[in-house]
Amino acid sequence: MSKENDVKKAVILLSGGLDSATCLAYAKSKGYQCYAISFDYNQRHKVELKYAAKIAKKFGVKEHLIIKLNMRKWGGSALTSSNIDVPKSGLKPGIPVTYVPARNLIFLSIACAYAEAKAIREVFIGVNSLDYSGYPDCRPQFIRAFEKTVNLGTKTGVSNKKIKIQTPLQNLKKSEIFKLASSFGISPSETISCYDPSPKGKPCGKCDSCEIRKRAKELFYNEKTN
Amino acid sequence: MSKENDVKKAVILLSGGLDSATCLAYAKSKGYQCYAISFDYNQRHKVELKYAAKIAKKFGVKEHLIIKLNMRKWGGSALTSSNIDVPKSGLKPGIPVTYVPARNLIFLSIACAYAEAKAIREVFIGVNSLDYSGYPDCRPQFIRAFEKTVNLGTKTGVSNKKIKIQTPLQNLKKSEIFKLASSFGISPSETISCYDPSPKGKPCGKCDSCEIRKRAKELFYNEKTN
Repeated sequence: MSKENDVKKAVILLSGGLDSATCLAYAKSKGYQCYAISFDYNQRHKVELKYAAKIAKKFGVKEHLIIKLNMRKWGGSALTSSNIDVPKSGLKPGIPVTYVPARNLIFLSIACAYAEAKAIREVFIGVNSLDYSGYPDCRPQFIRAFEKTVNLGTKTGVSNKKIKIQTPLQNLKKSEIFKLASSFGISPSETISCYDPSPKGKPCGKCDSCEIRKRAKELFYNEKTN
Repeated sequence: MSKENDVKKAVILLSGGLDSATCLAYAKSKGYQCYAISFDYNQRHKVELKYAAKIAKKFGVKEHLIIKLNMRKWGGSALTSSNIDVPKSGLKPGIPVTYVPARNLIFLSIACAYAEAKAIREVFIGVNSLDYSGYPDCRPQFIRAFEKTVNLGTKTGVSNKKIKIQTPLQNLKKSEIFKLASSFGISPSETISCYDPSPKGKPCGKCDSCEIRKRAKELFYNEKTN
């Protein structure tokens, strides 16, 4: 077997947010050669792609693919439709209007296609189901069902080489993700999680994502100083 | 409840081939208002999109969405890479190089996002697992696993309104699909299934898909004349 084949490889879903950046750094720390994939889905916060590119560079990915898929063609979310506003009055119970129809299902499907074409069998996604926006496609039961499905519907999956979906942040609190990011030398300011930033990337400070980040940041810094 | 809400609606995956055309006609015959979705995935046989548009018009779809997603960015198939030739020496056992990584997984995921944004809960796909090219993503076990996954990862799915994947051609022989198509007034020449047609849509006559169609056509016409 050639040396090239001995390298552990992984595809990493990279949004430009803190979670996926941490996920990439984590995979890298575990010795994976990383192939990053980001999506220009005509999202409201398209500026995140600039952050993704810088993070990809920082962690020396082997390749960074940016895939265009215009989700405004169907919309149905505050992030992909200009008719729906991003809520800015605090976290509420239930699935918010920033939920994007089938987003992680689509992203994972395309990431697995990319992985399969590169003969890679591990795909990392920074989903987290503790401090999150309540999206159903961040939950472990969805990820496990997806993994089963991809292994039934791909050439790789039906061979004896299964595709594995890795979710290292699944059970971390957001403040723990801050800690992990920090241990990899990632400053939160190198990433963007805001749903409604300015075109230059200034976070709105009021959306659910900004709110979650603010709370976690406070917890993280309180812990550091206490 | 308004009259508009009483209409049965469905999203139909429409490639321009005989199977998906028959699937659309079938849904229409069952009283569905149909929303067609086709993919410009930079496929070798992109000419199929012209056939899809004509079929969509013929069956009076409510909307026909054509989604651009450049699968040549990762390739890995004779249909999405110019480095891999389409086999033309007869059907062989196993999964052929015309298999496109995770194609139906991606197509179904996007079709479900479109359906969800339109508050539609049924998605039709013309997969068939009797006379087919041996692709794993045409098998019923994949479809059932996908349906479970989409209902775990979408807002619709986690409500009490499940998404249903309909596969009316799943267990038909290709000759039976010919018969069904004929009953809906579809002539095979209105569709294209060839993997390597001329830019104007002349089938190569030698690829697996042409081979399957030729055999089925013979069976169908023999049956009609005997």
